[in-house]
Amino acid sequence: VTLTGGEGADNGGGTRATSTAIVIHPGVLPGVPEAIAALPGVRVVCPPEEEIAEALRDAEVLITWKWRDEYLNGRLRWLQSHSAGSDQYPLAALKEHGIVLTSARGVHIVCAEHAIGLLLAMTRDIHQSIREMPARTWNLHVAPEVGGRTVVVLGLGAIGEAIARRLQGWEVRLIGITRNPAAYEGILDDVRPLSELEAAAAEASILIVALPAAPETRHIVSADVLEALGEGWVVNISRGAVIDEAALVERLAAGTLRGAGLDVTEVEPLPPDSPLWDLPNVVITPHMAGLTPRYGERLAAIVSRNLVAFSGNGPWVNRIV
Amino acid sequence: VTLTGGEGADNGGGTRATSTAIVIHPGVLPGVPEAIAALPGVRVVCPPEEEIAEALRDAEVLITWKWRDEYLNGRLRWLQSHSAGSDQYPLAALKEHGIVLTSARGVHIVCAEHAIGLLLAMTRDIHQSIREMPARTWNLHVAPEVGGRTVVVLGLGAIGEAIARRLQGWEVRLIGITRNPAAYEGILDDVRPLSELEAAAAEASILIVALPAAPETRHIVSADVLEALGEGWVVNISRGAVIDEAALVERLAAGTLRGAGLDVTEVEPLPPDSPLWDLPNVVITPHMAGLTPRYGERLAAIVSRNLVAFSGNGPWVNRIV
Repeated sequence: VTLTGGEGADNGGGTRATSTAIVIHPGVLPGVPEAIAALPGVRVVCPPEEEIAEALRDAEVLITWKWRDEYLNGRLRWLQSHSAGSDQYPLAALKEHGIVLTSARGVHIVCAEHAIGLLLAMTRDIHQSIREMPARTWNLHVAPEVGGRTVVVLGLGAIGEAIARRLQGWEVRLIGITRNPAAYEGILDDVRPLSELEAAAAEASILIVALPAAPETRHIVSADVLEALGEGWVVNISRGAVIDEAALVERLAAGTLRGAGLDVTEVEPLPPDSPLWDLPNVVITPHMAGLTPRYGERLAAIVSRNLVAFSGNGPWVNRIV
Repeated sequence: VTLTGGEGADNGGGTRATSTAIVIHPGVLPGVPEAIAALPGVRVVCPPEEEIAEALRDAEVLITWKWRDEYLNGRLRWLQSHSAGSDQYPLAALKEHGIVLTSARGVHIVCAEHAIGLLLAMTRDIHQSIREMPARTWNLHVAPEVGGRTVVVLGLGAIGEAIARRLQGWEVRLIGITRNPAAYEGILDDVRPLSELEAAAAEASILIVALPAAPETRHIVSADVLEALGEGWVVNISRGAVIDEAALVERLAAGTLRGAGLDVTEVEPLPPDSPLWDLPNVVITPHMAGLTPRYGERLAAIVSRNLVAFSGNGPWVNRIV
């Protein structure tokens, strides 16, 4: 499939020679190829996955969320990731081959809505009302309130910052945790390093996880952090590996943690025999927090600016390598 | 049951004479009698409902959410409502008898959390994931985003204003609808009268109902308003009568309205044969949006200030009559 669109794409025979060919992985979200093809001076190629390496013999740009080392053999010069993170790419090899890697940081801010939706589904017992609907019960009761509580936002990338921004005006105290507080430039006043997570959890009753997967973040939400949090709630919309899931299940089953809203788990899809499916104080959504009908529009905005950088006329956006 | 507490309540035999007896309806929320009894100079009496009129022969203050005309026969001078609205009280009779009526306006701001929770449960398809959990499915799909949309907040009392405040930073355009836009003093810029509801709905895809029940608000969310809203979402956390429920059901069943999150319905409890129970794009919670563990604390803060007014030393809070 080849899509051609945007202004200037059809201005006679000379245009094709100056347009930029962009290879797009078939697994991207609906609307992404169309949004990229609508950019001026772009020619989009969407081969089946097994033909991507071949397509890269004639193209210098790839948009994907999945890596194969054979992509190094072609003319690839710029890899635009479809993901916010970059843990799936061989950073050293890309650097060695002079391939620029840019992330989709900022495209997934809808995760902030999803995180707060999961939180409120738990705290306000909306999940319980939904489960009771088939029985037509009218189980009126007092559910907890988020207002007045302390909320830890673990991870202050674009998503964590979007969560913090959306919780302004909610009468909560917000503590941000990030790898490098000195470099933080967002709206939070109280920002602490990863090493202070447990102490921050002890001050809070809500923990929202928005931290990328990385060796140093694996199981950073440990049994000790959960114990410090006490009778509260955990929401995770980043990566399952950030939480010690066995410890999480133990506290949820014991009721020492009040609830969890999880869009991600250590193994995905979550295995049918996971106890998380049956716990009455857990809501699972299937890794869809970052999916939005606006994905194409947002990714195209990043690609548009990076096309200028690619032609040597401006700075890169979200450059990783 | 008689509760006595707070500073000064036990300062010798003279205190009882100067303390204010407050009769509290047994149907108030847990924690309310205790929070009121903890106020200084207060003696709380909690009789069974059928003995309230008798208790009012010796007391001038009543806290209730339910009216009986026999309450006019005693010494009642101040009626503090347990509710945000006042549609259940005989305003003219109270005025004629020189009884002050104050509402619990501001106590129910947790409704704002509940409203946004219902909205996100619908838009982000969290309700669908919850319903699919027993089947252990991993039905990953693209759900809608609230960001970028126009939201109508219908009713700008304490709850509507709290909703508007909590949606700052969500990248939505907010339109407020209130009975008297000229008297509005909140944070919204775009505030319009009730007569412009249909036109506002035509600009929006989300309608949040936070309007008191009153003759002029009955079915104000009409078939025409719902048609103007189009393929969007309705949330109601105020009173069922504000929406034409038959029209709502029709559009939900046809899918011309994408979803509804309803904490209130025209008849409560919602009858078992209501089609709302079975619609896959509806979430029902049983009139609990305003319930919070902080109810007593908040109501006591209002009563505390009104006790000063009752003794003739300050202005009333939330005075209706």
